[in-house]
Amino acid sequence: MAAFAMAVYFRGLDGAETFALTDAMIRSGETIDLHAAIGRKVVDKHSTGGVGDKTSLAVGPIVAACGVPFGKMSGRGLGHTGGTLDKLESIPGFRVELTTDEFLRQVRDGGLAIIGQGATLVPADKLLYGLRDVTATVDNVSLIAASIMSKKIAAGADAIVLDVKVGDGAFMKTIEDARELAEMMLELGRHARREVACVLTDMDQPLGHAVGNALEIRETIATLRGDGPPDFTELVLAASAHLLAFSDLGVDEAAGRQRAAAAVRDGSALAMYERWIAAQGGDPDEDALPTAPVVLDVDAPGVGYVGAIGAVDVGMAALRLGAGRHTKDDRIDHAVGVLCLKKRGDRVGAGEALAQVHAHDDRSAAKAAEEVLAAYTFTDDVPPATSIVLETIG
Amino acid sequence: MAAFAMAVYFRGLDGAETFALTDAMIRSGETIDLHAAIGRKVVDKHSTGGVGDKTSLAVGPIVAACGVPFGKMSGRGLGHTGGTLDKLESIPGFRVELTTDEFLRQVRDGGLAIIGQGATLVPADKLLYGLRDVTATVDNVSLIAASIMSKKIAAGADAIVLDVKVGDGAFMKTIEDARELAEMMLELGRHARREVACVLTDMDQPLGHAVGNALEIRETIATLRGDGPPDFTELVLAASAHLLAFSDLGVDEAAGRQRAAAAVRDGSALAMYERWIAAQGGDPDEDALPTAPVVLDVDAPGVGYVGAIGAVDVGMAALRLGAGRHTKDDRIDHAVGVLCLKKRGDRVGAGEALAQVHAHDDRSAAKAAEEVLAAYTFTDDVPPATSIVLETIG
Repeated sequence: MAAFAMAVYFRGLDGAETFALTDAMIRSGETIDLHAAIGRKVVDKHSTGGVGDKTSLAVGPIVAACGVPFGKMSGRGLGHTGGTLDKLESIPGFRVELTTDEFLRQVRDGGLAIIGQGATLVPADKLLYGLRDVTATVDNVSLIAASIMSKKIAAGADAIVLDVKVGDGAFMKTIEDARELAEMMLELGRHARREVACVLTDMDQPLGHAVGNALEIRETIATLRGDGPPDFTELVLAASAHLLAFSDLGVDEAAGRQRAAAAVRDGSALAMYERWIAAQGGDPDEDALPTAPVVLDVDAPGVGYVGAIGAVDVGMAALRLGAGRHTKDDRIDHAVGVLCLKKRGDRVGAGEALAQVHAHDDRSAAKAAEEVLAAYTFTDDVPPATSIVLETIG
Repeated sequence: MAAFAMAVYFRGLDGAETFALTDAMIRSGETIDLHAAIGRKVVDKHSTGGVGDKTSLAVGPIVAACGVPFGKMSGRGLGHTGGTLDKLESIPGFRVELTTDEFLRQVRDGGLAIIGQGATLVPADKLLYGLRDVTATVDNVSLIAASIMSKKIAAGADAIVLDVKVGDGAFMKTIEDARELAEMMLELGRHARREVACVLTDMDQPLGHAVGNALEIRETIATLRGDGPPDFTELVLAASAHLLAFSDLGVDEAAGRQRAAAAVRDGSALAMYERWIAAQGGDPDEDALPTAPVVLDVDAPGVGYVGAIGAVDVGMAALRLGAGRHTKDDRIDHAVGVLCLKKRGDRVGAGEALAQVHAHDDRSAAKAAEEVLAAYTFTDDVPPATSIVLETIG
């Protein structure tokens, strides 16, 4: 399989070959028929991974509040991007390890569940990923597409929205590469008779303000309350609209977006969030989240506009604070992280806080503050406005 | 290493990379300094493998009879090409497994030894070859060159003549591929400060008449007596001339060829053969060799000239008779094989014997006879004459 991965790395797979690989991976383990278990169309959402990406945590409650079952199996973070499970585990008491039965019951009766992907689904993926990791063959579009889609298809949702991150902080550095991956995943979804849409979204700067587990949960709650950062709020509404349009509600994307916005406005999304967290054993109260003992502002060195924020640099600073893992056995400090208060295009005054470091001690805080400052670049003129959603395919 | 082999297969290695691989393989085990152990310049000869290739068995005695020490470590056959060790083991009592000390003593005092490559020399080669075999990455010029040259360099001869087979029955199907391999091996030899010459030789038809272990020993003895087939005799003399020109005798290639021919003519080469076989425990008497119970002539279907003899087809017919191995655990029948009495360019009359099958029973003989006949093609006009040595490089 190591030789196979290397052959694919250099020669690629065509569509039929990628489908055959995906299919073989799915057949390596159990599969779940969510539709049959829930008795309704179930939607799912996946991201290729970015810095500050807590999108599923807000999208799930919004979609469920609109009456559409949302059942997702998620992963842990490794390297500069965080994992959804790690973020959820910063909530005291939250259980990511439900049995398949508990998961199905919670999706059916509670409308929403997010759990860890069990070892019984697509066991070949973990094994192949281990070989790709040590043979430097991770970065191949067919292998990435097969890895993602085998897990999504095995997990059983009828419709899937795929958030393909593009830019400095993402696997896909260019829009062309992201398109290629998106097209490949759409094709695999079609083969497996799943409805799939891909949103290609900007990962040249961290998503929202918060990077770090409990900090991102707080930002999720703020967003469900209607007080989220503009880029993150926009992505959450766009993804929710796609999922609602895929659902059995019989709405189009524009109507879906209106329903999603209404669920935030009328508090039903936040209420769904609280019921969901409680149902999986967690304490939904924001004040129950862990806080870091040291909070240090990162001040702007002068006057100007934020031109760019290196997403990998911010992600790595958060990782070194203890928010992520270098290796899969590292333990995570859920309280620490970075808040990027100023984002690309924001005007800053000298001495104004650009960002905030939440740390375990003064020394790590000071080091992270230096790293975060170095991640920012400034311009004299207002940089061109950009949109979080770059493109939608499918 | 499987992934590495695949990467090399698709991307190739440049000269420096191939040298680094070869060097690492040599350092995976012991090396022998033949020069120091013998106290003189020692020569060696290697073939990339062909059908009916018993060249070393005749070259060794000739070179040693001329007073030049010849010490060779050899391999076993797999697939349609036979191995030198298998041929030697058709001689009753012959021991291919000498200790390194016994080997050195025999080269120093007896002038000539051919033994099996011990597990202590280049152990990485066997392991890497196993991975190449199962990942279909055997056929890469750098990996082939590194495999051959690591073993030759570790085995310690000062000068090496490499017989690169070209054609249907060889690894290298075209003269261009053979040249590329030859240049690569010459370069590796230079790096390791060994004198190397490559002879590119025709493997579009079996070499000589005999294909099969004891049959090839008989043909070797006949050749050392001066009664060998013309193509095989020519190759033996050409290779011997190169080795003598590399030696400390101070002769050039033309003089080396004269000395080699003289050693055959005056019987000293055959006498050396007999002493050598006896020194390694074997019975040098031709009559001691095993004979097959069934000998079946393959008759020409009409009048004409032999246009071609498929070397792989003849090799496979011999293998199926029991002369070779499908897998490394197969046992060999040393008595069986094929004699290609008529070679390319020979005129044949209807009913005249083209070839002879030596078999264990009538059924396998009949089947092999069919296969051998099918390997022959005929022409009405005399085909253009060809030379066994196509090119010499280095």
